[in-house]
Amino acid sequence: MARELKVAVVGVTGMVGQEMVRVLEQRRFPVGELVAVASPRSAGRTVRHGGQDHPVVPLRPEVFEGVDLALFSAGGSVSSAWCPVAAEHGALVVDNSSAWRMDADVPLVVPEVNLDAARDRPRGIIANPNCSTIQMVVALKPLHDEARLRRVIVSTYQAISGAGARAVESFQAQQRALAQGRPVENGTLPGQLAGSLLMHWKADVATGYQEEELKMIHETRKILGEPDLRVSVTTVRVPVVTGHSESITVETERPLGAARARELLSRAPGVVVMDDLANGIYPTPLVAAGRDETFVGRIRDDLGNPGGIQMWVVSDNLRKGAATNAVQIAEAVLL
Amino acid sequence: MARELKVAVVGVTGMVGQEMVRVLEQRRFPVGELVAVASPRSAGRTVRHGGQDHPVVPLRPEVFEGVDLALFSAGGSVSSAWCPVAAEHGALVVDNSSAWRMDADVPLVVPEVNLDAARDRPRGIIANPNCSTIQMVVALKPLHDEARLRRVIVSTYQAISGAGARAVESFQAQQRALAQGRPVENGTLPGQLAGSLLMHWKADVATGYQEEELKMIHETRKILGEPDLRVSVTTVRVPVVTGHSESITVETERPLGAARARELLSRAPGVVVMDDLANGIYPTPLVAAGRDETFVGRIRDDLGNPGGIQMWVVSDNLRKGAATNAVQIAEAVLL
Repeated sequence: MARELKVAVVGVTGMVGQEMVRVLEQRRFPVGELVAVASPRSAGRTVRHGGQDHPVVPLRPEVFEGVDLALFSAGGSVSSAWCPVAAEHGALVVDNSSAWRMDADVPLVVPEVNLDAARDRPRGIIANPNCSTIQMVVALKPLHDEARLRRVIVSTYQAISGAGARAVESFQAQQRALAQGRPVENGTLPGQLAGSLLMHWKADVATGYQEEELKMIHETRKILGEPDLRVSVTTVRVPVVTGHSESITVETERPLGAARARELLSRAPGVVVMDDLANGIYPTPLVAAGRDETFVGRIRDDLGNPGGIQMWVVSDNLRKGAATNAVQIAEAVLL
Repeated sequence: MARELKVAVVGVTGMVGQEMVRVLEQRRFPVGELVAVASPRSAGRTVRHGGQDHPVVPLRPEVFEGVDLALFSAGGSVSSAWCPVAAEHGALVVDNSSAWRMDADVPLVVPEVNLDAARDRPRGIIANPNCSTIQMVVALKPLHDEARLRRVIVSTYQAISGAGARAVESFQAQQRALAQGRPVENGTLPGQLAGSLLMHWKADVATGYQEEELKMIHETRKILGEPDLRVSVTTVRVPVVTGHSESITVETERPLGAARARELLSRAPGVVVMDDLANGIYPTPLVAAGRDETFVGRIRDDLGNPGGIQMWVVSDNLRKGAATNAVQIAEAVLL
């Protein structure tokens, strides 16, 4: 067994931070000492790990002393300022925010797809991709290796937990109000998600895209090492708490076909194929919730594009889409 | 004012049937006499229209005597057997089931798109398209006229009311159980839709597609008169009661571009453009519910395909997707 490591989780009281602590424990990551870091608002709270309660401490440079691994999930501005501080203290930094993802000196890594990229990390920082990007590239990679992607068209069905605990609380309050016939209040959401849909990510006015959509385009290109890959994205929030789903249409340079795609996906790392529509077998958010794999179903020849395929990709956005991917990176680099 | 007409609504106690009666009244269709037809299970019920209660009668050939217009929404097998009977009695038949849609002697009509097709109806039957198809072709038609469609890729976010009243009841029971933390039972649904997603349409095993997806492909081709149009479809049921949404990627023969598409859609019949993402303006199921128009937003240049566009199309599946379209056909042909 590897030596035990000192691990800091920054943003430990958030949904992803809590999931990181759970994933570290479930995957038996050799945590010798856990440093639980959060904003001063969380002062006095504790975090349970390894049978012990760890006091939550505020962010100060000293918290990174002797830290081997720093997992960040406290938002872009915290990561911009503090990831370099942790790296200067010698920690491997794995950052779940979008702050460093497109930095040329920061690898953007999904272990099943481009672990090699993690080797060269001049800033000492590795970025964890956007949740929707991760599950998509896990499913695209084996197809790309076989037939070379020409174009990807994706529409997402994203769960609200990606927006954080307060958004989940507002959504659940909306759900209760709707079920009881009471007026539905927005809460922290910009509109009604219960019984409806939202596209509430920050808008990029110049393009008419949501930033979430642009992230999926640019991150997919960087991870696959294909800067000109054609990617068309529509991101939509659906009334689901956990588990992002994606309807993906794939065009390839060489004919691929559903039979071969299914074969490739069946043996792809991190992928579980669930695909028997006639018997009602396809992945749903409920199937994926709490799991670390990326589930793929509805693999079929695209009737609109001979040689191309369509598929349905579902994963737990807090786990493979965030916490699990970050811990997998740390495992690969440190253990 | 046109003379008053004798109108039969077959399947009058179903969700679409009830909506047909409402739409006839709201649009002031000149109903002189309403014949409310449903299965014997509905014996004893009445239907309110024009300030009067009309007794529900079972399906017999005699109910069509003197009928000018027969609106059918009682399922495919009833329509297969009984639409010809109504037509033989001289009624104009507008059928909402899928029974006659692909019959070469039955026009498949969306008035804003291909009203001309309604002129030639050798069987006396006009078919009302699938709900998801109608709203899509309303939005595609002006783009096709301008730049000629080459390919359409669509993922749907469909409301449960398209599956009928019992499905809605099961879904709402699921929603209540979920909100109260009780176990969620399927009811008449094949799985949990509350807090999740379903793909529960009949499967076409040979292609791996759901029949709902094949309908959208074949009906779109027939309505637009483009038998070889490339259409790629994924249909998904979302936890929404009313209002179908569609994420549509459009490729055209001639470059189109978002600015021109928005201009065309802004003046297209039956379309309302709601498109100002920076200010949170885009159509949702809640916006469309109860309305007759097709709402289009998120009109943008496709970053993955220069010259192409992407858009988001929402409409009330029971109204424009079913009842309103049927009544509009009747208005155009009979008034």
